[in-house]
Amino acid sequence: MDAMQAPTTRRTGSVDRLIALATEDMAAVDTLVRARLESPVALIPALAEHLISAGGKRLRPLLTVAAARLCGDGRDSALKLAAAVEFIHTATLLHDDVVDASALRRGKVAAHLIWGGASSVLVGDFLFARAFELMVETDSMRALNILATASRVIAEGEVLQLTRSHDLALDQDTYLQIISAKTAELFAAAAEAGAVAAQAAPDRVSALRAYGLKLGLAFQLVDDALDYSGQANALGKNTGDDFREGKATLPLLLAVARTGARDADFWARVIDRRDQQEGDFRRARELMIGVGALEATLDLAQDYADSAKAALSIFPADAWRSALEELADFAVSRSA
Amino acid sequence: MDAMQAPTTRRTGSVDRLIALATEDMAAVDTLVRARLESPVALIPALAEHLISAGGKRLRPLLTVAAARLCGDGRDSALKLAAAVEFIHTATLLHDDVVDASALRRGKVAAHLIWGGASSVLVGDFLFARAFELMVETDSMRALNILATASRVIAEGEVLQLTRSHDLALDQDTYLQIISAKTAELFAAAAEAGAVAAQAAPDRVSALRAYGLKLGLAFQLVDDALDYSGQANALGKNTGDDFREGKATLPLLLAVARTGARDADFWARVIDRRDQQEGDFRRARELMIGVGALEATLDLAQDYADSAKAALSIFPADAWRSALEELADFAVSRSA
Repeated sequence: MDAMQAPTTRRTGSVDRLIALATEDMAAVDTLVRARLESPVALIPALAEHLISAGGKRLRPLLTVAAARLCGDGRDSALKLAAAVEFIHTATLLHDDVVDASALRRGKVAAHLIWGGASSVLVGDFLFARAFELMVETDSMRALNILATASRVIAEGEVLQLTRSHDLALDQDTYLQIISAKTAELFAAAAEAGAVAAQAAPDRVSALRAYGLKLGLAFQLVDDALDYSGQANALGKNTGDDFREGKATLPLLLAVARTGARDADFWARVIDRRDQQEGDFRRARELMIGVGALEATLDLAQDYADSAKAALSIFPADAWRSALEELADFAVSRSA
Repeated sequence: MDAMQAPTTRRTGSVDRLIALATEDMAAVDTLVRARLESPVALIPALAEHLISAGGKRLRPLLTVAAARLCGDGRDSALKLAAAVEFIHTATLLHDDVVDASALRRGKVAAHLIWGGASSVLVGDFLFARAFELMVETDSMRALNILATASRVIAEGEVLQLTRSHDLALDQDTYLQIISAKTAELFAAAAEAGAVAAQAAPDRVSALRAYGLKLGLAFQLVDDALDYSGQANALGKNTGDDFREGKATLPLLLAVARTGARDADFWARVIDRRDQQEGDFRRARELMIGVGALEATLDLAQDYADSAKAALSIFPADAWRSALEELADFAVSRSA
């Protein structure tokens, strides 16, 4: 896909229907998550609870549960795999916040600022291991394979981002490779694992994996746009974090490419040298909007959301399929 | 066991016979480890290689290989599980060094000082995930269960150590609980997984787990003693690291308890407040030796080594059993 193409039709969506359909399953996942946070070492549930109780929408475990339901069965394993997915996600958040030295997460002070970076690293390790213990309980080697691979791909994506994150010459393909690994892979694995829990046919497993991957790409693209256009409250983190870190996200890469020689000195100063002054973030945002970089990022996100929906076409129309389709549009429309 | 009991007979041992017996297997493990370090993200093998090529004795994967051989078979799975064990161990070392801000590891500059803490955290995550991918390949849910549980227990031990590590009122049982979790658990799991790879009978699996656990306790106790008595070169890390960090290890806890009110102010200053001056480390060591705290720590280590050997009594006498017995004595005699 090419971010330079003609504007895409933006659709509005909602996560509400999916949340309503999955209420009972997600309550069971929540009970499981809380039970498995327990440890004789009190700091572990305290720190993990801080992050998990802040909630967010629990999109990844929702995908696991919804995929299993769409494929007709597998509730018991699906709940455990959903909890495992939430643990893997929480572990990566804890490690990310240490890596990025982020101040806010899900609208709360980041755990490493309360308990220290060492605790965040080690509690992340605990959650990661606990996720694998939960997977073992499902006795599904296929699900273990999917989530072990996803965990490795996520780490590769994070390291790639770390080594290339301030590189304004980053091409769009490498950027997409990074967000595919660090974000979309877990969406893909979460949906795929749900289908596997329901012992779905191979084409259905592949379709749900494809849905999750495209959905994850759409979500990350919108996140990267929201870092320049959103409100801190809605994001649950600070607007401008990516800018302050000089992170080479698509809105920035497109803005740099499209403003060309005219503003090269500005970008070199604020991103390459990270010599930022009052007003620089506002100027960056204005340049970005001026050359349509935010709009192009959201258009690409809508394209991925459309692909995600298309992947579901092999399933008969039912409430779960509709709810997943609405979720895909929500990924993009939440930017409004 | 009570560290206050009468001095134990110290035996000398060696790891050489075990290394010689396992040469071929360990070469295969090495090949596997290097192959599975590969990643399209170049920083990952570079950083991991730095640590893994520094080597050490690879005791943990050696245990897996030796346990499988002692139980007669299972070579293919055992090699993969041995590589997984080495990956888990390396991941915990990378995270530990970030947590402790250590300067040296295996005689080389710690990875986080070369590539930064963020890289060490993320490459640790990569290795951890890769370990689970390797386990999936063995198709042994039992081995996965053993190593997932061990990974979780290690993280719990590390967090417990973090929260209690400067606590001079730490009792010996809690100290033993910490080193059992953070160190001995992986020795136990490594040996147990090898027995499982060989599809050994339950009593043999339990015996090898017990051997690994006691051996791991002996090793950690000796490590803690060597931090006060050893040479930096032999240790592969700096002597006095634990002292400078104010870490409540058994030699220190015994020294504080045995020197009593007389030196309470000294310990409060150098450990509680970590206000250390030139000569304090030497004084701490002298106090420790004076009250027999180092000797008592090594005696306890010898007791565990003896228990480790006793656990092997259900196996018929053969070269592998003898080599594992010698390793147990080596755990303690390497302090000489």
